[in-house]
Amino acid sequence: MEVVGRDAVLDDCAILPDGDRFLVFSTDMVHASTDFPAGMSDWQVGWMSVAVTLSDIAAMGADPADILLAIGLDDPSRLRPILEGAKECCDTYGARFAGGDLDCHRELTLVSSGIGFSDHPVRRAGSRVGDVIGIVGIPGRAQAALEGFPAYREYLFTPRPRVEEGRALARSGVTSMMDVSDGLLVSLSDMLDANRCGYEITTSRIPGIEGIPGDVSRDLALRGGGDFGLLFTCPPEILPLSIPDLFVIGRVIAEPVVKVDGRPATIQGYQHRWDDGS
Amino acid sequence: MEVVGRDAVLDDCAILPDGDRFLVFSTDMVHASTDFPAGMSDWQVGWMSVAVTLSDIAAMGADPADILLAIGLDDPSRLRPILEGAKECCDTYGARFAGGDLDCHRELTLVSSGIGFSDHPVRRAGSRVGDVIGIVGIPGRAQAALEGFPAYREYLFTPRPRVEEGRALARSGVTSMMDVSDGLLVSLSDMLDANRCGYEITTSRIPGIEGIPGDVSRDLALRGGGDFGLLFTCPPEILPLSIPDLFVIGRVIAEPVVKVDGRPATIQGYQHRWDDGS
Repeated sequence: MEVVGRDAVLDDCAILPDGDRFLVFSTDMVHASTDFPAGMSDWQVGWMSVAVTLSDIAAMGADPADILLAIGLDDPSRLRPILEGAKECCDTYGARFAGGDLDCHRELTLVSSGIGFSDHPVRRAGSRVGDVIGIVGIPGRAQAALEGFPAYREYLFTPRPRVEEGRALARSGVTSMMDVSDGLLVSLSDMLDANRCGYEITTSRIPGIEGIPGDVSRDLALRGGGDFGLLFTCPPEILPLSIPDLFVIGRVIAEPVVKVDGRPATIQGYQHRWDDGS
Repeated sequence: MEVVGRDAVLDDCAILPDGDRFLVFSTDMVHASTDFPAGMSDWQVGWMSVAVTLSDIAAMGADPADILLAIGLDDPSRLRPILEGAKECCDTYGARFAGGDLDCHRELTLVSSGIGFSDHPVRRAGSRVGDVIGIVGIPGRAQAALEGFPAYREYLFTPRPRVEEGRALARSGVTSMMDVSDGLLVSLSDMLDANRCGYEITTSRIPGIEGIPGDVSRDLALRGGGDFGLLFTCPPEILPLSIPDLFVIGRVIAEPVVKVDGRPATIQGYQHRWDDGS
C-alpha cells in the first residue's frame, strides 16, 4: 500500500526543508501491554516514552528541539512521575518538554512527538559499496536484562538515546544511519530496504556483553531490541572517530542481501510494516 | 503541578521561534472507547484523527505543514481505510501526510502530531477589555448529531478544521484565539485561564441550529463538544470581516469571569487538565 508513500516511511524521522537547514519530525507510541517490562517505574515509563523519539532524532544526526507527549492515562496518580521522567529525559538531551495532550485510557498509552533541526540530516538511504558498517553502543544489553541478566536492567529501563553521538557522526560524514531499537538484524534489513546495496557483518567484531557467554551475547546482539544504539555506514578513510563505544562490524557489499559471517541472514525480531503486503 | 510549565499548556499548540517566523507544534490522542461514535467508519476515524490536530494549528492562524500519525491498531484490516481518511484530510487542508508509527493495541488508538508555520501566531492570551468575542462556525451541531438529530452527522463524523478561516483571522489582527472542540463554555473558561479579563456572551447572538428548537440549540451550543469552530477576540473596528459563518456573540469585560446573558456561568462539559490540582 502506498497511501503514505515509500519515501516518507524509510527514515526514523520525516524531513522538511526549513530555510537553510532541515527540520526532522518523529512520533512513537509505547503502551503498557507491549512496551513496559515488569518492574519499570512510572518515572522510567515517562523517560522511555521520550527517549524513543529522541533516539529517532539522534539517528538523523539532528539537534532535538521540542517534545510533546500525548498521554492516555489509566490512573491519575501515575501522571506526576510520568511527567517528571519525561521532563528529565528532555532536559538531559537538550530538548524542551512543551506540553501535549492528556486523555483517559484503559491501558496506559504514551505517544511522544519530537522535532529537531540539522544542516545535513543523515538518512537511511545513502550507503555506498566499500563503506564500512559501524555501530555505536554495545547491542543486546536491553534484551539481556529481559532474559535473565538483571545487571543490565538500566539499558532496558532508562535507555539512553545517542544524541551527541548522532550529531558527531553526521558531522563526520557518515553516509547512512538509523537507530537499532528493533535489534541489529532487523535494522540491517531496514537498511537493505532503503538502499540498493547489501550489508555483511562479522559477528566476531560485535562487542561482547561483559559476563555473558560469547554465543549468548552474539545472539542477544543480533535479535535483541530495546537498545538505542546507532547503526551507520561510512567511508573507511574517515575512521577512526573519537566517539565512545564505536565499533566497526562489517562492510557494505554490492549484492543486495544481509550476510552474517558470509551467509545470508534469516531476519528475526520485531517486525513493523506500514503496508499490508498488497 | 508545574512539570511542564503553565505557559507551555495554555495554547492549542506549542510555539517555537524559527528564523523570522514561528513554528507551531501540536499533538492529539483519540481512541475507540471515548472518541469514535457508533456508526463512524474507519475512513472517518482516520479523517478525524488528523482533523483534531489541524484544528489546533488553525487556531493559531498557522499554515499546516507536516502531519504524523501514531496508530495503535486492534485489527490489521482497519489500517488501509484509516490511512486513506488521514491522507484525504491532510490533502484537503494543504498538509503533507509524512508517516508515523504503527503498533498493535487492544483498543484502536490514534495520535496525530502536526507542525505548522506562521509569521504571527495568535495565542489564547491577548484578549483586551473592549474587544468583541467572535466565533466561526455554528456551534453545537456535532453534539446535536449525538443527541438525536442525525441530519448533523457530518459535523460529528467528518469535522472540518477551520484552517483557511484561522489564517484569515490571524491576518486581520484578532487578539486571541482557540478552537472550540470542547464546547463553547469550556473554551471560554480556557480563555479565562489564559487572560486577566473576562468574557460575556449573549445567547441570542449565538446562531441557532436549523430545525432544532431555540432552547435546545442554545444548550447544545454552550456545552456541546466536537465542533471544530474557532473562538476569538478582536477590536470591534476591524469588523466586519469577509469570513463565512462568523458571528459576534459578546464582549471582553474587565471582571475575570465568564458571563452568559449577564450571569456568571457554570462551566460544564469536557474537562481536561495537565495538573492534578496540587
